[in-house]
Amino acid sequence: MSTPTSLFTPPVDHVVDPDLAHRRADAVVTVTGADGAPLADTDVLVEQTQHRFGFGCIGFDLVDHANGTSADPAYDQRLAEAWFDVFNFATLPFYWGTFEPEEGRTRTEELLTAARWFREQGIAVKGHPLVWHTVQPKWLLGRPLEEVERLQRERIRRDVAAFAGVIDMWDAINEVVIMPVFDAEENAITPLARARGRVETIRMAFEEARATNPSAVLLLNDFDMSTAYECLIEAVLEAGIRIDYLGLQSHQHQGYWGREKTLRTLDRFSRYGIPIHMTETTLLSGDVMPEHIVDLNDWQVDEWPSTPEGEERQADEIEEWYRTLLAHPAVQATTYWGLSDRGMWLNAPGGLLRADGTRKPAFDRLRSLVKGEWWTGPTALRTDDAGRVRLSGFLGEYRISAETGADAGPATFELDAPGAQEVSVRLGE
Amino acid sequence: MSTPTSLFTPPVDHVVDPDLAHRRADAVVTVTGADGAPLADTDVLVEQTQHRFGFGCIGFDLVDHANGTSADPAYDQRLAEAWFDVFNFATLPFYWGTFEPEEGRTRTEELLTAARWFREQGIAVKGHPLVWHTVQPKWLLGRPLEEVERLQRERIRRDVAAFAGVIDMWDAINEVVIMPVFDAEENAITPLARARGRVETIRMAFEEARATNPSAVLLLNDFDMSTAYECLIEAVLEAGIRIDYLGLQSHQHQGYWGREKTLRTLDRFSRYGIPIHMTETTLLSGDVMPEHIVDLNDWQVDEWPSTPEGEERQADEIEEWYRTLLAHPAVQATTYWGLSDRGMWLNAPGGLLRADGTRKPAFDRLRSLVKGEWWTGPTALRTDDAGRVRLSGFLGEYRISAETGADAGPATFELDAPGAQEVSVRLGE
Repeated sequence: MSTPTSLFTPPVDHVVDPDLAHRRADAVVTVTGADGAPLADTDVLVEQTQHRFGFGCIGFDLVDHANGTSADPAYDQRLAEAWFDVFNFATLPFYWGTFEPEEGRTRTEELLTAARWFREQGIAVKGHPLVWHTVQPKWLLGRPLEEVERLQRERIRRDVAAFAGVIDMWDAINEVVIMPVFDAEENAITPLARARGRVETIRMAFEEARATNPSAVLLLNDFDMSTAYECLIEAVLEAGIRIDYLGLQSHQHQGYWGREKTLRTLDRFSRYGIPIHMTETTLLSGDVMPEHIVDLNDWQVDEWPSTPEGEERQADEIEEWYRTLLAHPAVQATTYWGLSDRGMWLNAPGGLLRADGTRKPAFDRLRSLVKGEWWTGPTALRTDDAGRVRLSGFLGEYRISAETGADAGPATFELDAPGAQEVSVRLGE
Repeated sequence: MSTPTSLFTPPVDHVVDPDLAHRRADAVVTVTGADGAPLADTDVLVEQTQHRFGFGCIGFDLVDHANGTSADPAYDQRLAEAWFDVFNFATLPFYWGTFEPEEGRTRTEELLTAARWFREQGIAVKGHPLVWHTVQPKWLLGRPLEEVERLQRERIRRDVAAFAGVIDMWDAINEVVIMPVFDAEENAITPLARARGRVETIRMAFEEARATNPSAVLLLNDFDMSTAYECLIEAVLEAGIRIDYLGLQSHQHQGYWGREKTLRTLDRFSRYGIPIHMTETTLLSGDVMPEHIVDLNDWQVDEWPSTPEGEERQADEIEEWYRTLLAHPAVQATTYWGLSDRGMWLNAPGGLLRADGTRKPAFDRLRSLVKGEWWTGPTALRTDDAGRVRLSGFLGEYRISAETGADAGPATFELDAPGAQEVSVRLGE
């Protein structure tokens, strides 16, 4: 309080706006020719090419496809088309146990190829995760604590370095609230976290990653939405560790949170002034999991079908979920946790496509928001006598072209701040 | 981890011992006369006068009695007799809202009288609590944040100073896990905790109290036994705030925790190497509260009777509870939250006496441990030719006297460490 050492910042209050004014700009775009003179009274075509908001999905299922090693190329091609039809932000898997199944044998090349493939198509990529207690290498078990720490630190530096410039965003550490007391599966990280404490384990992840790639954007990620996560975040802030994004998981296998709970959760976690990424969202198009299950992994079923009623419900929930997230100014990205039911975690019908690759209503509903209501398709406008057009659109990237010959070919501009703004674009350069 | 700034200490593992060897000493006591010469071949009488372990109970109901202002002197006299028959450690109420119902009008004199009354009878006293968000003064509402903080700081200094030397142990702050998000009752402390963060709010409580009374023993106290409290404790440790005792509440209105949960909880919270005080224990002798109640205060009933079956169950639970706590070496005290059903929190039948003051089986069961199985009553021993007697007993204070005349009158000694030890006592000084 009066102590000058506190690194805690006063809470930030956000205004929730279902009309999403904070996601839009009202721009006056002055269009000039290659010579810099305004193109007065000219027909131009404007269209959005990218959302500023991160509409994310995992890209796990497309790694083989990107590497040309798909076991089912036709299916994966269909999956890829659906993926790029809606999303602009991919999460790729870096679970230590599968990334380095034998010590020293890593999937670096395969993941680099996949990450570059996404990037070349304008997709931002995040790696998940650098430190976690689950999906751990078997070969780590039994090593002394000091060696586990050294290997974990080396692993962070090695992989962050190898992917720098391609992946510059990482879930630095995952599920620390439970990390030191996790007992469902023997692993080498839980004893490390218990011995060092949660704060120092987080410091390890963030400091190693940031030292290796100073421009990396680093997330603290957790599924625990209780006050435990608040206490952990406050500990991290007081310890002077910088969190770039706060990651909130939101696997809703036990039922949709609903608007009220979602906003209450966002209110609690947005007060730290750290932008929020809803990192892992699942909404089912079938029966929901019973409430008494504490660890979702404990629910093992042979079949978990997508149903017509479930698909209608999921579509409604998807729409409300995305509307709610975008209405809250602190949320800057969200990642849906699996596009198709095929190969989904827990066999759950949480995909936006069915296992056969056909699109569920939820897919169409989401697409109609992301590429419809919230999107500016090709729009014909005419500049005024000063070469200006007025454009109201979602924050993001835009392309503009004029029909005055090759020297006025397309140019791009960005709407990067909400509200009124002025932009100048020179065509034909 | 390699960082030198971490204040987290490696976890401490404790060996649980149901035989309580860590609570006992095997002493060789050398008895000398006033002249320092060993009293060989002499009959001596040894008896325990105090437990080292803190067998606590709230003393709220005896404040009027101690002040001579009891509304029911006969009942309170009976209550006091039962209290002193078992307990050696009292918690007194310092809820700001009742301690200072009007600004500047405090119950200081009344509480000082009560605290001195306990101390004069050999009872340690703790004040509860210095900072909390419940039972708050109405007159604080509406004050600006800075003023609330100043008044809260002044309140800590004023009361810790006024009671120093009489009360040197305080629950410095209560229920911080929930403090910044508590919404059941408007109060001035929740907004303060939200604005400053949990760590700085804790720092305020501990630093003001310690600056005022450097020899004060200060507790962090909470009812939240989830990982949230772990995260908070780790934050406090990393922030360099010294916790003398960790307070774990244990109101079991929704059913007895049982030995396994109790030990698991103690295992989780004892790893920080901070001694544990089970600060607030309630076990019912009637129906338990339904599991779906989250805030115990939400369960409002007109009648909540103590039943014969409930009383038998409570007696068994009391015995196992105390045996379990004492078996864990980290536990140094426990406080039962109310001796009698009369005036008990939530009207619950959690007392060890019924509302009419008669003793439930649980009272007798607890007494038979504290003043029976774990107690050394008056014991006749005979010194050997070197003036020595052997004594095996619980840690605590003892009185010894010899039957050799007035110059060998009683002396006291202490068994203060487990295992074998040697003690010398000079009689008749």
